[in-house]
Amino acid sequence: MTMNTVVKLARRPQGHVQREDFTITQEPLAELKDGEIRVATQYISLDPAMRGWMNDAKSYVPPVGIGETMRAFAAGTVEASRNPKFKEGDTVSGLIGAQSHAVSDGQNVVKADTSLAPLQTWVGGLGMPGLTAYLGLTYVGEPKEGETLVVSAASGAVGQVVGQIGKIYGCRTVGIAGGPDKCAALTSEFGYDAAVDYKGGWLADDLKAACPDGIDVDFENVGGDILDTVLAQMNFRGRIAICGLISAYNATSPVPGPYNFRSVLVNRLRVQGFIVFDFIKKYPEAYEKLGTWHKEGKLKFKEDVREGGLEAFPDVLKMLYTGENFGKLILKV
Amino acid sequence: MTMNTVVKLARRPQGHVQREDFTITQEPLAELKDGEIRVATQYISLDPAMRGWMNDAKSYVPPVGIGETMRAFAAGTVEASRNPKFKEGDTVSGLIGAQSHAVSDGQNVVKADTSLAPLQTWVGGLGMPGLTAYLGLTYVGEPKEGETLVVSAASGAVGQVVGQIGKIYGCRTVGIAGGPDKCAALTSEFGYDAAVDYKGGWLADDLKAACPDGIDVDFENVGGDILDTVLAQMNFRGRIAICGLISAYNATSPVPGPYNFRSVLVNRLRVQGFIVFDFIKKYPEAYEKLGTWHKEGKLKFKEDVREGGLEAFPDVLKMLYTGENFGKLILKV
Repeated sequence: MTMNTVVKLARRPQGHVQREDFTITQEPLAELKDGEIRVATQYISLDPAMRGWMNDAKSYVPPVGIGETMRAFAAGTVEASRNPKFKEGDTVSGLIGAQSHAVSDGQNVVKADTSLAPLQTWVGGLGMPGLTAYLGLTYVGEPKEGETLVVSAASGAVGQVVGQIGKIYGCRTVGIAGGPDKCAALTSEFGYDAAVDYKGGWLADDLKAACPDGIDVDFENVGGDILDTVLAQMNFRGRIAICGLISAYNATSPVPGPYNFRSVLVNRLRVQGFIVFDFIKKYPEAYEKLGTWHKEGKLKFKEDVREGGLEAFPDVLKMLYTGENFGKLILKV
Repeated sequence: MTMNTVVKLARRPQGHVQREDFTITQEPLAELKDGEIRVATQYISLDPAMRGWMNDAKSYVPPVGIGETMRAFAAGTVEASRNPKFKEGDTVSGLIGAQSHAVSDGQNVVKADTSLAPLQTWVGGLGMPGLTAYLGLTYVGEPKEGETLVVSAASGAVGQVVGQIGKIYGCRTVGIAGGPDKCAALTSEFGYDAAVDYKGGWLADDLKAACPDGIDVDFENVGGDILDTVLAQMNFRGRIAICGLISAYNATSPVPGPYNFRSVLVNRLRVQGFIVFDFIKKYPEAYEKLGTWHKEGKLKFKEDVREGGLEAFPDVLKMLYTGENFGKLILKV
């Protein structure tokens, strides 16, 4: 008999995620009720937001409870259906959790058209990261042709897509990433006009050299020193789209905000936080744009697919916060 | 022979403003050229922004140079005119500097209609502070009926007007000020629904009690601990209009940004800096609204007029940063 392998939250992490924060259990498969489908998971998305979901704190979604299945975006194949909208063999993606077999009422998944892109891309460039990049840049960053766009964590799942869309919009694009390999990929693979290595020791100077006309739009995934350095180089009426603040997610004591916060006043910046769920009505538009650009070859998606199955979930998740991954981090089940 | 008494910047201040940062000199009056007027200054506005103007740092206006007349809004009477738009006896207000007799080409002053309000009010409620309050609240804060509006430095020149306009817009208004006297005035004089004393020792608890439904709009004049406390209580999609960050203006070492900066992301806040000059095209609208509400008795302006003439300028200016003033601080010449 097939069993469901489930990653459950065992305890709330202190600081960095530990293996012991999770338990991995085997459970019998549940019987399907009318309207339900069972999805055999093939790819699980590892997302920076997961760290926040593990905290017992007010956030944009309720925390994952102790003993509950870890929340995760994933993609897989329908292996049983009692829902007329789905049939066996359909590929789907959605918020179905870190488990090998997910039962869904069909509300939290979409069909994943694998003629457009391989299934793994449906948790990446054509999944939440792609939607986040398109919607956040377009509707929060609001870049104009000829402006300078800076993206932090620029080789990550979201950042790589933001940079490419920035080029489509006619911006000068500058990516910030850690280490020479990622920085080389920013320009050679993702079309960034310039790359800045935040581990290089000269962040402010290097950023200034890469942005000779200052910064008009910052798509911020990191926060901390990077945001501080960006703030000091923002142009008048610049916009900062706060997509993530990953530098602080594992903090166990209060983290100071940006020392250059005064730039918000001096330069009349607009700093705005968002998450992809805010734009749910614009998903169809985003899928259409991303799919078209991808088909036209204007958008490429770099994925970092890790083997090891669900047993490896905790270790693979940790890579996100240390910068070990290179491209969209995905766990193959 | 009448002389012009001029307050000049003698050196750049370190930390708090000192008397020695200024020199006060006597100079012969200049001859008027065609198109110029001479204004006998009667009231000089003391504004928090002055501290920034004294720094040699990139800001929204160039710094005042060493040895130059200190920049200041002021109001007075035209005592000589070679400009057809102004005649002797006209009352005017504008950016004419901290001096007893200002020469102007008429570009930087407006006529001050003293049938609408006494001349001193033209550097306050009907001057830059009033414009700042109306334009910043309306176009940056964007409050909606029924929302909770918090204002820091709420009894100050700008804050007192913001609170009253917030009531006109149908908000619950909560003012933050220092000490029981100012807090009492917030509710008794400026129509605030509740007042919070930031010197009371229980800022977070007191603010929470005053804002049982959370905070939708923050009109921020102070920054520091106050902004941090507000950030922790902001509602989903709240707006923070950054008008000033007076708590940090005298700092001599880097000041950390708000520790609760993460709230921008979690609550999808919009944080936006502005200054009144950004809205120059909307001044006529603002004058019209402020004038009408004032005439109808919906807007009252509390002014703190200090005697002592220009000799007292440095000491009166210092009051702004220690919270000694109560209402719009004005120096009578």
